[in-house]
Amino acid sequence: MTRAASPTAPIGVFDSGLGGLTVARAVLRQLPNESLVYVGDSARVPYGPKSPDTVRRYALQIGEWLVEQGVKCVVVACNTATAHALEALQAALPVPVIGVITPGARAAVRTTTHGAVGVIATSGTIASGAYVKALRVAAQGTDIPLAVQAVACPLFVPLVEEGWVEHPATRLIVQQYLAPLRAQAVDTLVLGCTHYPLLRDVIADEMGATVALIDSAEETAVDVVRVLSESNRLAPDHGTPVHRFVSSDAPHHFLVLGSRFLGRPLNHVEHHVFT
Amino acid sequence: MTRAASPTAPIGVFDSGLGGLTVARAVLRQLPNESLVYVGDSARVPYGPKSPDTVRRYALQIGEWLVEQGVKCVVVACNTATAHALEALQAALPVPVIGVITPGARAAVRTTTHGAVGVIATSGTIASGAYVKALRVAAQGTDIPLAVQAVACPLFVPLVEEGWVEHPATRLIVQQYLAPLRAQAVDTLVLGCTHYPLLRDVIADEMGATVALIDSAEETAVDVVRVLSESNRLAPDHGTPVHRFVSSDAPHHFLVLGSRFLGRPLNHVEHHVFT
Repeated sequence: MTRAASPTAPIGVFDSGLGGLTVARAVLRQLPNESLVYVGDSARVPYGPKSPDTVRRYALQIGEWLVEQGVKCVVVACNTATAHALEALQAALPVPVIGVITPGARAAVRTTTHGAVGVIATSGTIASGAYVKALRVAAQGTDIPLAVQAVACPLFVPLVEEGWVEHPATRLIVQQYLAPLRAQAVDTLVLGCTHYPLLRDVIADEMGATVALIDSAEETAVDVVRVLSESNRLAPDHGTPVHRFVSSDAPHHFLVLGSRFLGRPLNHVEHHVFT
Repeated sequence: MTRAASPTAPIGVFDSGLGGLTVARAVLRQLPNESLVYVGDSARVPYGPKSPDTVRRYALQIGEWLVEQGVKCVVVACNTATAHALEALQAALPVPVIGVITPGARAAVRTTTHGAVGVIATSGTIASGAYVKALRVAAQGTDIPLAVQAVACPLFVPLVEEGWVEHPATRLIVQQYLAPLRAQAVDTLVLGCTHYPLLRDVIADEMGATVALIDSAEETAVDVVRVLSESNRLAPDHGTPVHRFVSSDAPHHFLVLGSRFLGRPLNHVEHHVFT
């Protein structure tokens, strides 16, 4: 069921915390006229180690609240929530729902030279098998001999949240997690968690210059453009876009760290408790 | 307000996740006849980086549920929840509520040789100032010239949850966090988070053999014995104690890792959603 929303309605975007702001950033870059409501579920972050049922429950609570706010579509800017809850959200919400996994898989298939694709993500995303499935779908009809190696990197999110993106300990941890991907000689590596682009430099150093790193943010924004454009719901260029940022925890931490992810200053963060 | 509960009623214990099982273990060692209901809030773990209001809301939800289960007292087996919610729990619940900070502070004051006491804990616990306050109270009436150095160690919980208790990266991270405590030449170090005893070996290596490490679990269990004994509510020695373990996330992870914290096998974990 899809409801006809006004073109001036905002785009809803949510993540377990701050990582999804990298997707919001790409959406706003490609669609500067759009209004946006971003929800970071900071009171329950992280989603990565939690069970599919719990993540699905959280995602549905937030998706329903975004619909109450009048959004015209919902972007699941979190790989774990996309892996566990995309189908449930698409079934439950009356607006289009766009995840980050299919766009990332599509970009990886377009980029790979030999079909040796690596995926790094949270435990939940890796255990779901969602990337392997999406990569196979994306490669259908091509002659790419796909070989996927998927590795869970549970410590990357805490390291990014702590701001240790260049620390020697971070390098050791990156080395350990990426060793099987180096051994497999992947030519393309999907950064399958919206926090990981902040570790791009140290990941690139470890993988070497010949390995392409895929960040699904820009590719997801391309999907948002397509979905809104197909339904004639792109915002007109004469409006005044409004950007709301909402945290389920007290806004302080979100305000302090959020601008690093969003790439522009954050002036105000609202607080809302999801139940 | 304190309700007269039966001596055969269980003791309630809760934590944000698995760490509090180290406290449950000490309680069961000192009180083998007691029944127990343990709640790990794995669906919302960790509490350490979250705001006082959010942690207080979670703690009250769990405390009220434990009272509904008929517990005769509640042990807050989490330093962050003790720091932010002990007073609110004591005001709201009709049974005695025991935290882990006062017992830890008391043990540190009893142990220190020169008054140079270090505290390591989550960001939330350190920011609350609860340990500094509790140490000052514990030192009142003694001639100990207390000098407290408190350091937040946000990456320790994810490292323990990942099981990397001996990894070279863990050693680097421990070195960095503990450097100011070594510089201060503390003689006693409080492990102010129930996860940290699992890093005891690497912390001890870094601090050196002359520094005493304080784990509040046993001392907290001493408080439980005292509170129950003063009110004649110790369980009789002829009963059959029942130990229930409850997780707010799906029980699988709790079952797999919990026995490492509890020091005995876990056979069954219940699931309950707190709202």
